Amino acid sequence: MKDKISTKTLPGFLEYLPAEQLAFNKIKDTITSVYESYGFVPLDTPVLERQEVLLAKAGGETEKQIYCLEKGDEKLALRFDLTVPLARYVSEHFANLIFPFRRYHVAKVYRGERPQRGRFREFYQADIDIVAEGELPLINDAEIVKVIYEVFTKLDLGRFTVRLNNRKLLNGFFADLDLSREASDILRIIDKMDKIGRNQIQELLLAFEIEAEKITKILNFVSIKENVIKELEALNIKNEIFNEGLSEMKEVISYLNDFGVPAENYIIDLSIARGLDYYTGTVYETVLNQYPQIGSVCSGGRYGDLTGFYSDKKLPGVGVAIGLSRLFYQLQEAGLIKINQATSADILLVSENLKAAAKLADELRAQGLAIIGAYGPDKFKKKLTLANKLGVKAVIILGEDEIAGNYFSLKDMTSGEQIKAKNVTEALKFMSNL
Amino acid sequence: MKDKISTKTLPGFLEYLPAEQLAFNKIKDTITSVYESYGFVPLDTPVLERQEVLLAKAGGETEKQIYCLEKGDEKLALRFDLTVPLARYVSEHFANLIFPFRRYHVAKVYRGERPQRGRFREFYQADIDIVAEGELPLINDAEIVKVIYEVFTKLDLGRFTVRLNNRKLLNGFFADLDLSREASDILRIIDKMDKIGRNQIQELLLAFEIEAEKITKILNFVSIKENVIKELEALNIKNEIFNEGLSEMKEVISYLNDFGVPAENYIIDLSIARGLDYYTGTVYETVLNQYPQIGSVCSGGRYGDLTGFYSDKKLPGVGVAIGLSRLFYQLQEAGLIKINQATSADILLVSENLKAAAKLADELRAQGLAIIGAYGPDKFKKKLTLANKLGVKAVIILGEDEIAGNYFSLKDMTSGEQIKAKNVTEALKFMSNL
Repeated sequence: MKDKISTKTLPGFLEYLPAEQLAFNKIKDTITSVYESYGFVPLDTPVLERQEVLLAKAGGETEKQIYCLEKGDEKLALRFDLTVPLARYVSEHFANLIFPFRRYHVAKVYRGERPQRGRFREFYQADIDIVAEGELPLINDAEIVKVIYEVFTKLDLGRFTVRLNNRKLLNGFFADLDLSREASDILRIIDKMDKIGRNQIQELLLAFEIEAEKITKILNFVSIKENVIKELEALNIKNEIFNEGLSEMKEVISYLNDFGVPAENYIIDLSIARGLDYYTGTVYETVLNQYPQIGSVCSGGRYGDLTGFYSDKKLPGVGVAIGLSRLFYQLQEAGLIKINQATSADILLVSENLKAAAKLADELRAQGLAIIGAYGPDKFKKKLTLANKLGVKAVIILGEDEIAGNYFSLKDMTSGEQIKAKNVTEALKFMSNL
Repeated sequence: MKDKISTKTLPGFLEYLPAEQLAFNKIKDTITSVYESYGFVPLDTPVLERQEVLLAKAGGETEKQIYCLEKGDEKLALRFDLTVPLARYVSEHFANLIFPFRRYHVAKVYRGERPQRGRFREFYQADIDIVAEGELPLINDAEIVKVIYEVFTKLDLGRFTVRLNNRKLLNGFFADLDLSREASDILRIIDKMDKIGRNQIQELLLAFEIEAEKITKILNFVSIKENVIKELEALNIKNEIFNEGLSEMKEVISYLNDFGVPAENYIIDLSIARGLDYYTGTVYETVLNQYPQIGSVCSGGRYGDLTGFYSDKKLPGVGVAIGLSRLFYQLQEAGLIKINQATSADILLVSENLKAAAKLADELRAQGLAIIGAYGPDKFKKKLTLANKLGVKAVIILGEDEIAGNYFSLKDMTSGEQIKAKNVTEALKFMSNL
């Protein structure tokens, strides 16, 4: 006996059993179809990019996580997100794109992180972005929330809340405190508010040599949760950037109302910062209210300059990404993914008369049903066992009796109810009630 | 001004403009939906595998083409096909799979070939396989042809022919000529028949020290194109393997008739060999009759042992792969891909009344239409220009007049015809005629 090779996937690399894969695809397809219904077009860029393209933006932790390889003279790397490929794509094809450019991209990205529960090295992201040539009206910032609202409503994962902030509010506030230079670091610390709580944030900021009085102001500021607009106005801050942010936030909120996004599905949360330099206006996070431990399932924001590393054009945009593989994993952990079918087929068709069975199967497929033909020499009982194992909704039996009687037997595999169907129309009616 | 980084994709790596991408996705979705209608389940294995997994089967040219990389202690490689990952997957998850296991996999694979016209380093394959535990009835060999027939009928690329052969016919024939040891090499040479023609094949075989008389027999054999079964029977070959192959072929042809595959869509072609050791029975190639220069667009066959490198189980299977990226490229070259829309949206909705427009858009989306909202402050004319550039089928105008009159204007962008629609039902009726 020869030595067999390990068939386990690499640590941090996912693959699903068929039933899980079908459940995963259902979520992926729901997200994609919402994106498409809002007129986003699909992109599909190479998984491999030139190293210099990816390293231009990466830096720090991300850079260490990039999978690099060489082939011949070429230095290649696997993409670590879908934003850098978008920036490269828009730079490369600028003259042939139509702006505002609305694209979605649902695909795998790669990060050589230390594998741990719920963190993966190969994982799906589901991104949308709207990129403009010139100005990008704020109505787009609101439409992104509308799309998030539609996606998570259709995913039916219970109540969810989009948390909104605006980087100008934060930057202006810190400028007003004469803490502009420290703002990036403070924001990075504040970003952890949900994870480590107010007391620890306070200590971290003290360690950063921020005056106690200012820390109190900062903590009070990021803790404003109700009547936020009014409270912000009441602060009476004179900083121009701050007031620009306030005005933008009011405008976006007003559009959200027009878009019909229910007020219970979004809040202004001044503790949301989303990274450091990239975002310039609105920022988003999304939480499933019953599963706060999952963290943000959909995040993003507005940026002033998508293509800075690759082009001299200044292209503003706004977008969000759903961390799809991580979301699916967390939903599985929370018991929210129902896995009961190892097939997407609707019917297993049992027959030994191939000609008659194939004709019937064709007719049913033409009506949109997925059919597995069990036409082979296996015993009837074995075929029924297969139907049960697969979890098909129904079985059709087309035996000698049926063919002689010009009908077929159609059995609901859940209830056990069985009818004699004379034609496809009757079968469709029966199937529509399963 | 800083030095900008090249934004071109790497040689051999494809990316499409939105209109091309939509055309590509349409083909991909057609193939996928046929696969699903036959009850194949989707798989999605990691792009990165352990090097040892890929190198176990690769060998020769393929091995040189594999993209390898290392990260930490791990030796990784990018998959070069979808069959090796299937073999690994089935070995790993054997106990949790339901047999016969019908899976499809439409995904990118990687080969570091020298880039040339129509050959890519990253490209899509669209595979189906039926893998059995124990025996796999021949009816499956025929069903694969039925699926190919459905796919290429739905793709609507003109007439096509599935070329069928059986490796046992070839192996038995060569055994009968006492050329078993040379069979692999002869088959490799014969596989080039379409490309280099009979005379060159003859010379290559002579150079191989095959007796002239046997070469004539071989060339006559692979040239049988009509009444093939009868001609093969008339050869009266006593070899057991040959007669097993003949019997299998007759059985498969009989099933094809039962499946309703038109006789004009398949032929027996004894010159088809498909590689060397892997296939053990039926083999397939598929050609578009009007575009023979494209070569085979869908190939595969039956194998006796899928998982030999990874498991002691012997799992026979049958499957085919469509070289999707290559097919799309060739169809573009042949002018068969119509590219006219840079969006998949049906309607651009022009309005300055966000509240009314968003409500209407929601109603239309609920009916399955994809809508881009042009709600921003841009001028009306600019919005219409956008509609034309994108190539949306229709524009809705919801201005002050429309809102006051309780209707919306709906314009066919091709004919210029415009109606006043009172509700979504009227709009749907108008759209269904575009």
